[in-house]
Amino acid sequence: MNIDGKPYRTIWLGDDGVSAEIIDQTKLPFALEIVPLRSLEDAAHAISSMQVRGAPLIGATAAYGVALAMRADASDDGLDRACAALAATRPTAVNLRWALDEMKKELTALPQGARVAAAFARAGEICDEDVETCRRIGEKGVGLIQAHAERKQGERVNILTHCNAGWLATVDWGTALAPIYRAHDEGLPIHVWVDETRPRNQGASLTAFELGAHGVPHTVIADNTGGHLMQHGLVDLCIVGTDRTTASGDVANKIGTYLKALAAKDNGVQFFVALPHSTIDWSLTDGSAIPIEERDAAEMTQMTGRLPDGSIATVTITPEGSPAANYAFDVTPARLITGFITERGVTPATAEGLRLLYPEHREQAAA
Amino acid sequence: MNIDGKPYRTIWLGDDGVSAEIIDQTKLPFALEIVPLRSLEDAAHAISSMQVRGAPLIGATAAYGVALAMRADASDDGLDRACAALAATRPTAVNLRWALDEMKKELTALPQGARVAAAFARAGEICDEDVETCRRIGEKGVGLIQAHAERKQGERVNILTHCNAGWLATVDWGTALAPIYRAHDEGLPIHVWVDETRPRNQGASLTAFELGAHGVPHTVIADNTGGHLMQHGLVDLCIVGTDRTTASGDVANKIGTYLKALAAKDNGVQFFVALPHSTIDWSLTDGSAIPIEERDAAEMTQMTGRLPDGSIATVTITPEGSPAANYAFDVTPARLITGFITERGVTPATAEGLRLLYPEHREQAAA
Repeated sequence: MNIDGKPYRTIWLGDDGVSAEIIDQTKLPFALEIVPLRSLEDAAHAISSMQVRGAPLIGATAAYGVALAMRADASDDGLDRACAALAATRPTAVNLRWALDEMKKELTALPQGARVAAAFARAGEICDEDVETCRRIGEKGVGLIQAHAERKQGERVNILTHCNAGWLATVDWGTALAPIYRAHDEGLPIHVWVDETRPRNQGASLTAFELGAHGVPHTVIADNTGGHLMQHGLVDLCIVGTDRTTASGDVANKIGTYLKALAAKDNGVQFFVALPHSTIDWSLTDGSAIPIEERDAAEMTQMTGRLPDGSIATVTITPEGSPAANYAFDVTPARLITGFITERGVTPATAEGLRLLYPEHREQAAA
Repeated sequence: MNIDGKPYRTIWLGDDGVSAEIIDQTKLPFALEIVPLRSLEDAAHAISSMQVRGAPLIGATAAYGVALAMRADASDDGLDRACAALAATRPTAVNLRWALDEMKKELTALPQGARVAAAFARAGEICDEDVETCRRIGEKGVGLIQAHAERKQGERVNILTHCNAGWLATVDWGTALAPIYRAHDEGLPIHVWVDETRPRNQGASLTAFELGAHGVPHTVIADNTGGHLMQHGLVDLCIVGTDRTTASGDVANKIGTYLKALAAKDNGVQFFVALPHSTIDWSLTDGSAIPIEERDAAEMTQMTGRLPDGSIATVTITPEGSPAANYAFDVTPARLITGFITERGVTPATAEGLRLLYPEHREQAAA
């Protein structure tokens, strides 16, 4: 999407044709810094230091990492070493492993001399495929916003989102934000309530940044606020992303998603989850079986921001000696979800709804 | 309660008998600073700068403010001027006006020469009465925790609280935290989940500080976390405070309270609201009629904490140009509340439940 009028992706091929460039997301929202990736080590560092984050973008960066590694050593050994090094950067990222498998499949059959060009080509394709998937989520979801715009006859449509499921988490468009960008670009009058999303503040930093940079009207709110807004008719619909979706329609997403879904249900507000099919885990039928990551308590007790002189600083906000806990995700049961927005369409958040869109998984899901 | 083993109140008579001393709460949780109040101006500044906060403590500070003013000018004019100056410090604080009326009632009938001593005596009584009210809330509420302790046979009882309804918001004991201190002091094995309470962080700073200082086991969590904890059986009961309670049992409390009450209901977790009778507004039967204060957006976009060198700094956490909204309270409907804990006992969160404890308001509430 745009940053101050100029279109960007989160990762792209360098001008030399044998490097990649990324936006350093650790510097957002305070500075826009473009970082070149010239080696396997650069790519691995970008992933492990979270200069790039979000499953699709991590996968794309890993694909470019393999391509960069091929320049130094295109042997089978080199390929294996590159994949192992990249896989170790974020051990639990499913999409990362998928991208590495894709690259391996593509390159193993080729002679060494053809591998560099083929690797960059396949990495580019992986990026383009992700952009197309997200573009379609926007295309399929925009009608939900359009319906509210018609009902409200020109009054702005208020959409609440949690965390960052925007273009910064993908290669472009995003998932939850794809229908929002589409609606905005089509001229619908929209406004987005951006949940701060403690403890890592992805809403207040990344979502607010990308919506602002593209020109989408938005307001940052404390995570505590959504229920009150819904009680007072100030939210027309919610759209969030998902890290993992069960075949029965339960959704594991950023901690706090469940609370917003409860409030939406209690106030008759629509609650949509946008997702590419790759987040569906067809082997699971019960969201409570999804393991929830506990992260470093320092993410809770410390906060990074801009000092009055413009420099970036990290402050501790809790008393010395007070422990903190940091659960990263929660599970929203399907019964609280109005529907899913996928690259194939909008469907109820039920096993049947998912099988309708993905008949090829019918047997897998029934198992 | 205790700070590192030494008992404190939030305000007390100075050793000279004609001044007051307070804990400067703007310095918490990073430093414990005692500030003497020697004049009307000191007291007014303490209230307006939020060195003291919480309705009961504001009332007590205003009472001492009148006493301090009497030392300088005990005339009727002096009394009127003092009350006007103190009333202007926090225009919407009901308890502040109540305390000023009490002082006026006490002093107007007396000759000027008797007013200083009488004023300090009445201010001390107002403090003692508040302590006794809160102590009783603890006494009446501790049985609710005891019941879980018995059920769990020695396993710790997990209590979730939101914002700060502790002794720092009152003169001692607190409201929501009074049963918790009582349970801890009686040796029950308890642990408190402390909601950070964005945007002003009263949980992460004040509640965590006072629980830690008194030795009560606790863990600070993001406001997003409570629902997940309840889904996983990690919360036995919730206890929160209230700023205003309708005669029908609806509760206006810190923004985000409603979301925790929804999660408690969804997971069969008890949700109690602790309150002194003074928060009940017998004229209201519908919580949605309570006006919700919108505060400065800077409370949302900025965060104060301790830099690595120990100094205190404020950082901005949102992108430039991203607006923020700051709704201070929300309303939790009575249907989500298991019961009230008041200085007279535990009662259902219904009009009938409240009338049972406060028969003297029976007619007022029916009107």
